[in-house]
Amino acid sequence: MSLALDPAAQDLLFREARTANTFADEPVSDEQIQAIYDLVKYAPTAFNQSPLRVVLIRSEEARERLVPHMAEGNQAKTRTAPLVAILATDNEFHEELPELFPHFPQAKDVFFAERPARERSAALNGSLQAGYFLLGIRAAGLAAGPMTGFDFAGVQKEFLDDDHTPLMVVNIGKPGENAWYPRSPRLAYEQVVRTV
Amino acid sequence: MSLALDPAAQDLLFREARTANTFADEPVSDEQIQAIYDLVKYAPTAFNQSPLRVVLIRSEEARERLVPHMAEGNQAKTRTAPLVAILATDNEFHEELPELFPHFPQAKDVFFAERPARERSAALNGSLQAGYFLLGIRAAGLAAGPMTGFDFAGVQKEFLDDDHTPLMVVNIGKPGENAWYPRSPRLAYEQVVRTV
Repeated sequence: MSLALDPAAQDLLFREARTANTFADEPVSDEQIQAIYDLVKYAPTAFNQSPLRVVLIRSEEARERLVPHMAEGNQAKTRTAPLVAILATDNEFHEELPELFPHFPQAKDVFFAERPARERSAALNGSLQAGYFLLGIRAAGLAAGPMTGFDFAGVQKEFLDDDHTPLMVVNIGKPGENAWYPRSPRLAYEQVVRTV
Repeated sequence: MSLALDPAAQDLLFREARTANTFADEPVSDEQIQAIYDLVKYAPTAFNQSPLRVVLIRSEEARERLVPHMAEGNQAKTRTAPLVAILATDNEFHEELPELFPHFPQAKDVFFAERPARERSAALNGSLQAGYFLLGIRAAGLAAGPMTGFDFAGVQKEFLDDDHTPLMVVNIGKPGENAWYPRSPRLAYEQVVRTV
């Protein structure tokens, strides 16, 4: 069964792309991040909500503040990656809904008046957007190194506020030497998909 | 700034792809779903975990059981889409970790011995995988219609069990007539990304 997506694109995004643990010494520009965002911003979310927020760690001072919050096994790569980004959700995303979803501007009040409902929706849709962003990094010819091994409360306090919840920290750059493990197994189709 | 991904692939996955609300009368085969899964299974998750589960609604009887759980505005399209899939998480995904992440087989017990930790991880990583799956549907030249407007407890009770949590229901097929709204606005880069 062949897909409509060009095989080279399949390789770039999925088959040959790997999570990098080391990075080459080549900078990642703001223009590259903007090109990634301007591509993946079109991917679908509920009510076209856009809870994802990105904090780019560019200054040495900010990186020094981030590294101690990372799990020990993630500290060296967080210290040396060309660019590090915190991906987070904005739990007050509903304020933007009348602009983002003009077909039903009441969605803000009908579905998201309560904070717990917003947090649930931001967690799901912000995670979808984080996945799109990771594939966008690959679409830019870069390797991503997403990490959830860090002190979430510490990163939130240091870089965010009560309205913003961290999802992951991502190292971004060209892969370096011995950048990845051998490919690990995946579940078979029959383990994941069933028909009723 | 140009991306490494071919412009036609950018259009297919992001720029021209749209969330479909109507579908053409053309079936979606198991082979297509398998090709989608066999592509997107390579996208990254924490510890290579694979909490996403997919229930394909193929029988008329199963569809009749699903439709009443959908929000009223989602019932007609759920009834008429060529194929409907429930995307869910397996909150007992940790059982597979020794096989899926052989570099650190202890992860199962060190990080995921407690159910709340598993649910948090399955929600994040299952949502990432759901996002990859939606883009995989587009990679197959099909349109996706993801929906979160349904009775989650009802769908769980009807099609899943206590260990599996619904994430979304997705209509899948070739787009039909007047399949989508005009494109809604997106947040500007400066509203989403900041640098420290």
